[in-house]
Amino acid sequence: MSHIIVTGANGFVGGALARRLQDSGHRLTLIDRDFDAAPAPGARQLRGSFGDPALLDAALDTPADTVFHLASMPGSLAEREYAAGYQVNLLATLALAQRLAAHKDGARRTRLVFASSVAVYGPLDADAVHEHQAPQPAISYGAHKLMTEIALADLSRRGLLDAVSLRLPGIVARPASESGHGSAFMSLVMRRLAAGEAYVCPVSAAATAWWMSLPCCVDNLLHAAAMDTAGAPPSRTWQLPVLHLSMEQVLAALAARYGDASRDLIRHQPDAAIEALFGHYPALHTPAALAAGFRHDGSAAELVRRALAEAAICS
Amino acid sequence: MSHIIVTGANGFVGGALARRLQDSGHRLTLIDRDFDAAPAPGARQLRGSFGDPALLDAALDTPADTVFHLASMPGSLAEREYAAGYQVNLLATLALAQRLAAHKDGARRTRLVFASSVAVYGPLDADAVHEHQAPQPAISYGAHKLMTEIALADLSRRGLLDAVSLRLPGIVARPASESGHGSAFMSLVMRRLAAGEAYVCPVSAAATAWWMSLPCCVDNLLHAAAMDTAGAPPSRTWQLPVLHLSMEQVLAALAARYGDASRDLIRHQPDAAIEALFGHYPALHTPAALAAGFRHDGSAAELVRRALAEAAICS
Repeated sequence: MSHIIVTGANGFVGGALARRLQDSGHRLTLIDRDFDAAPAPGARQLRGSFGDPALLDAALDTPADTVFHLASMPGSLAEREYAAGYQVNLLATLALAQRLAAHKDGARRTRLVFASSVAVYGPLDADAVHEHQAPQPAISYGAHKLMTEIALADLSRRGLLDAVSLRLPGIVARPASESGHGSAFMSLVMRRLAAGEAYVCPVSAAATAWWMSLPCCVDNLLHAAAMDTAGAPPSRTWQLPVLHLSMEQVLAALAARYGDASRDLIRHQPDAAIEALFGHYPALHTPAALAAGFRHDGSAAELVRRALAEAAICS
Repeated sequence: MSHIIVTGANGFVGGALARRLQDSGHRLTLIDRDFDAAPAPGARQLRGSFGDPALLDAALDTPADTVFHLASMPGSLAEREYAAGYQVNLLATLALAQRLAAHKDGARRTRLVFASSVAVYGPLDADAVHEHQAPQPAISYGAHKLMTEIALADLSRRGLLDAVSLRLPGIVARPASESGHGSAFMSLVMRRLAAGEAYVCPVSAAATAWWMSLPCCVDNLLHAAAMDTAGAPPSRTWQLPVLHLSMEQVLAALAARYGDASRDLIRHQPDAAIEALFGHYPALHTPAALAAGFRHDGSAAELVRRALAEAAICS
């Protein structure tokens, strides 16, 4: 029985991952500031910040085989609250990595799966993005994610950690209550139409974005925990494959599932700022990530099905 | 009269910079753990670590207009002493940047000139390196320099700092006493031949490296302090132009200056590790840095002349 730790375990992604892990037969330690539900049998909940050394002492009462580090302050919020984002997204994350590196026990190293972000790239123009493109973050959240990737690669190179950093796109469909994500519209459009509710969409029908469902994201996180890293690149970083879809393609998939009447529920009222930031994503090429076993949802229809199936469970 | 701070001001580069600045008429604060000489009139020496908050309080009794951050633990040493390198080269450096950012006074931002390193690139193959190449550091020193570049770019983007990061090559001709640099042979070969002493060179005559003299490096640091950053790239980072020379070309320039007899003082006894790390540098293209006004020494003859003229002053 191995010991698995999940930070941000009450979050949108972390909660789904915890549910998937709770029947795995492993010892499971869940860390978050609060929890919406009681722990499953065999799982342990620790309330507090992963940046609190005493809490980490408790979490690491037995060394962790695998740590999923998902906790972070979302991008829009971290951009407004710089000092708090710097503390959580950079300093506390680096301290966690140092702590896990110090825990190295002989040849046994902790597999640290780190939720990085496509925010590392910075402004995207019309050209397709390749997974090896030099990142140029344009928000502090992206800068701190990129710095963490570099730190984890260095600790892995030194043999002190066994890190896998995944650059996640926006994941759908988040609950309407979640804030701090500028890309919230991507989830809202799905949930509203599935519920038969009208929605004023802040991007045009032609707006393109990178899409991934929550179950697909969890699949990729679990793959990152299980994969052989012997042939991993020095960066220890993979850009997850995504579906590159226009809002029109997503609306068509929703209409196919929920009826053509759902088309009448949508009114486009593009917000220039949101359209600029989240409406012009180019194609994304990820041959290395695909070769390493990471996957996108396969099709818009499957994206919608999986995103809303999971939403039904967790909202 | 503006206030200029130099960290690592007793080092090889910092000392030369301090000598150049001491007659500039500005208020000059020099920080280092120790000093070999008394301060020039108008300059102030603070003994201690730039990572010590109390020392920074003293240094910043009046806000700094310009900070040259040159202090760091050298690459080879930081690779052996990971914890110390992490503390100095990453954490203390980030704390210094935060401190200067917090000092922002209205529209007045501190110009922070940061000595980054070509160590950010990682292994170099036969292909020419372009200044925009995606870095992939292979030592902790390089990882921490790269992380700092990203942090400074982010603080500059936020308007809290006005940073310029320069990726420095090995600088010649360091005193023989300096340790921790795997590239020490580049300086030793110059000093020994200039002094008429025999030298066993640990790389072959064909070994190629990136060369810059100390006066040239100081010129570039001063240019970084004075340049207009209005059109700077978001990275705030420039790869300094270098001379890409074989050891044979450097030996020829030394022979031209010190006589053909100096050729007999050299015996090549390549060390496989040093040749691998420092003997196969490819060409380096830096059009953006040249356009921004940064310069290399111009020729092997001028490199040798300037490297040894400065060496004569400071050793």
